[in-house]
Amino acid sequence: MSELSSVGEADQRIRARMPTFGSERLPLDAVMGRVLRQDVYAERDQPPFDRVMMDGIAIILGNGALRVFRLAGSQLAGMSGQALDDPRGCIEVTTGAMLPCGCDCVIPIEQTRRDGEQYVLLEGGAPTRHQCIHPQGSDCREGEALLTPGVRIRAPEMAVLAANGVAEVEVARVPSVAIIATGDELAGVDQPLARGQIRRSNDRALATALAARGFGDVVLTQVADDLAATKAKLAGLLATKQVLVLSGGVSVGQRDYVPEALHALGVEKVLHRIAQRPGKPMWFGIGPQGQVVFALPGNPLSALVCAVRYMLPALEQAIGLVSAAPPQVALAAGTITHPSLTCFVPVRVHHDAAGRAWAQPVPSPTSGDFSSLPRTHGIVELAPAETAAPAGTVAVFHSW
Amino acid sequence: MSELSSVGEADQRIRARMPTFGSERLPLDAVMGRVLRQDVYAERDQPPFDRVMMDGIAIILGNGALRVFRLAGSQLAGMSGQALDDPRGCIEVTTGAMLPCGCDCVIPIEQTRRDGEQYVLLEGGAPTRHQCIHPQGSDCREGEALLTPGVRIRAPEMAVLAANGVAEVEVARVPSVAIIATGDELAGVDQPLARGQIRRSNDRALATALAARGFGDVVLTQVADDLAATKAKLAGLLATKQVLVLSGGVSVGQRDYVPEALHALGVEKVLHRIAQRPGKPMWFGIGPQGQVVFALPGNPLSALVCAVRYMLPALEQAIGLVSAAPPQVALAAGTITHPSLTCFVPVRVHHDAAGRAWAQPVPSPTSGDFSSLPRTHGIVELAPAETAAPAGTVAVFHSW
Repeated sequence: MSELSSVGEADQRIRARMPTFGSERLPLDAVMGRVLRQDVYAERDQPPFDRVMMDGIAIILGNGALRVFRLAGSQLAGMSGQALDDPRGCIEVTTGAMLPCGCDCVIPIEQTRRDGEQYVLLEGGAPTRHQCIHPQGSDCREGEALLTPGVRIRAPEMAVLAANGVAEVEVARVPSVAIIATGDELAGVDQPLARGQIRRSNDRALATALAARGFGDVVLTQVADDLAATKAKLAGLLATKQVLVLSGGVSVGQRDYVPEALHALGVEKVLHRIAQRPGKPMWFGIGPQGQVVFALPGNPLSALVCAVRYMLPALEQAIGLVSAAPPQVALAAGTITHPSLTCFVPVRVHHDAAGRAWAQPVPSPTSGDFSSLPRTHGIVELAPAETAAPAGTVAVFHSW
Repeated sequence: MSELSSVGEADQRIRARMPTFGSERLPLDAVMGRVLRQDVYAERDQPPFDRVMMDGIAIILGNGALRVFRLAGSQLAGMSGQALDDPRGCIEVTTGAMLPCGCDCVIPIEQTRRDGEQYVLLEGGAPTRHQCIHPQGSDCREGEALLTPGVRIRAPEMAVLAANGVAEVEVARVPSVAIIATGDELAGVDQPLARGQIRRSNDRALATALAARGFGDVVLTQVADDLAATKAKLAGLLATKQVLVLSGGVSVGQRDYVPEALHALGVEKVLHRIAQRPGKPMWFGIGPQGQVVFALPGNPLSALVCAVRYMLPALEQAIGLVSAAPPQVALAAGTITHPSLTCFVPVRVHHDAAGRAWAQPVPSPTSGDFSSLPRTHGIVELAPAETAAPAGTVAVFHSW
C-alpha cells in the first residue's frame, strides 16, 4: 500500500504535474467568465478628449464676472469640432461631449435659465475653472497596461476590453473532461432502485462544481466493477479527453480496479492516498499523452472535498488563472481534529458586524453523508493535531 | 425634477414592485446553477440499508474471542440477499455493500489474512460491534426535508437531487432581458473611432454581470439619441422582453429621452434619482404588462454600481433566490463620505490571519473611470456622513 502524502505535499505534486491547455482567440461576446491570456493596453487616452461631465453650457470663464452668455452653438455627445473664442458666448453641451475648443468651464443646465438666444446664470452659482470637465488622459494614458493574463473576465474586465477595442480576445482553452462513475451498486436518477442499490450522484455533483468554475466541457459516463470493462472504457476516454475524473474504485478492496486499469493503460501514478479525512484514497496520475487523471473516492463528501481542495485549484492553475490564496476564517465552535490526518469539516460561513468571517462546523456523521451539505458553504482545513480545535481557531476555507 | 430617494428607500421601492417570473420543470442535467423552486424530500432512508464502509469481512462478533472465520460467501456492492447465522463464518464485503443479514461487525481487509477458505485476524486487531457500518437511516430518514425552494443548485444540492431520484426539477424561469445602450457618441468595439466618440462598453459589462448571476437570456441593442427612435425601439422590446436595462439617457439633459419615451409607452415611473454617488440619475419603472425597466446611468462605474446594488439583487429576489444579507467588511484605509449622499467606493478585499475581511478603497477619480476596476472585487456602501470614514469603519460590501 502506498505511503500517505500530506495534504500540502499532495497539492504540490499535483500542481507540479499539471499540463497547460493552451489558449484560443474568441470574439468578445464569447468570453464572459473566461480567463484572459493576453495583455490589454489602453487604446487611447481615457477619456480620449476633455469630456463634458454634465449637460449644460461650456464657457470661457475669464475672471468669472459674466452672468449672461450668448448662445453660439451646440456640441452634443458624439460630435466633433465646435470652438469658442468669445468670452461672452457659450456652447450648449451634453454629458459625454467633447469640450468645445477654447472653453475651460461647464455650467450645469440646472444652474442656468434660457432667455431667447442667451443663457443666464441663476443666483448663487459660482462657476470655477475646469468644473464638470473630465480631463483627457486623467483616468489612463494611451498604451498604459490595463489587464494582464490570468484574470477572469468579470464585468469590470469586460468593460475595459470593450472600451479599448479588443474585438477578439485570447483566452484560456477549457480542457475536455470525462467524469466516470464506478460501482455496480449505482442506479441512475430515473431508474428503479433494487435492494442494495443507491443512486449515482457524484458524477453530477462534480460536473456542477466544475461548471461553476467555468469547466463546462464535460461528459458523464459509468463503468461496471470489472477490470476489462474499466480498461476498455478508460482507454477510449484517454484517447479523446484531456481530463478524466473518476469517482470510486480507488480504495484497496478486491473490486477497486481503477488503479490497476490505469497502470495497464500507461497512466503514471503520481499520488495515491493522502493523510486526510475524508478523502484518504484519492489517486492522481498523468497519462502517456499528458492526460490528467483525478481518481476521487466514491463517498460523496470525500469526492467533493478532494475536488475543491485539489482538482479545481489545479485545473484553474493549469488554465493560467491567477487567484488569491483561499481566505482564512475563524471557527465559531470547536471541532474535531486527528493526530495524524488533516481533517476537512463542512462549515457555514457568516460575517459578523466587525467584518470577521466565522465558520460554523456542520460535521457529517460519515463520509457517506451529504444530506447536510446544502446548509454549508464549503470546508475548513484543520491540520493534524493532538487536541480538538477550539472555537476561534483560524483555518483555511475552501468554497464548494 | 424628482425628489432624491435614499438608497434604502430606492431598494425597497424596487423590490416591492418586482414581478415573479414563474418556474419550469427541467431535466436534472439542465439545472446546474439554477434556483430550485420545489421541496425535495428523502426518497428513502439514507443510507437505505446498513451500509458497509470498508472492504473486508462481515462477521457476527459475539464475545469477540474468535480469530478465524470460515468464508461463507460474498456480498458485493449492489448485490442483495446474503445472510450469515454461524458466528464462526464470515462474508466478504465491499465498500457500499449491504451488510449481510445477521452480521454486526465489519473487519477491514487490511486487518485480515486470507488462508484458503478462511480469514484470519491479524495480531492487534480488536473488532468492536457496529464498526465500519453506516447504519440505515443514520444520515436522514425517508421523507425528511432535504432542500427547500430558493436555494441555488451548487454541487451539494445536485448531489442531493440525484441521490433522491429527482429526475426532473422545478426551477425558477430566467427572465428574458434586453440591454439597450443609448448615446450617439458610442461606437462598437470593432468600428473605427471618430473624434468625439468612445466605444460602447456598458452593455457588455452589464451582460457579464447578469450572466455571472445566472441571467443569461440577454440581447444587446443600441438606440440613437432621438425621441422617436427611442420610443420605437423600446416599444418593440417591451412587447417581447420581460426586463429592459437601459444605459444612459436618464439625466436631465436635452437629449435624455429615455424617461419621456418610457412615459409615452405607458411605463410607470417608480423611481428616478437616488441620493448617492455615483449613480444618482438611476430610473426604475414598470411597464403596462409588468415589464421591469431599469434605466441605469451612462457612466460606466455608475451603471455597474446601480446594477450590483439594485438590479441584480432585485432580479434574484424576483426568481425566488433566498440569499443572505451582503457581508460586512472593515475599511483598510479611510475614504470619503458625503453629507447627504450615500457613497459607493470600489474596494479590493482580503482576509487577514484572524479571518477578518478588509476592504482597501480603490477610489475612481470620476464616475467615468473604470480602468482601475479590474483591481477591485466590488464596492462598499458608505452612508451619508459629515466626516470622512476612518480606517476600521465597517461597511456593507457588494461584489461585482
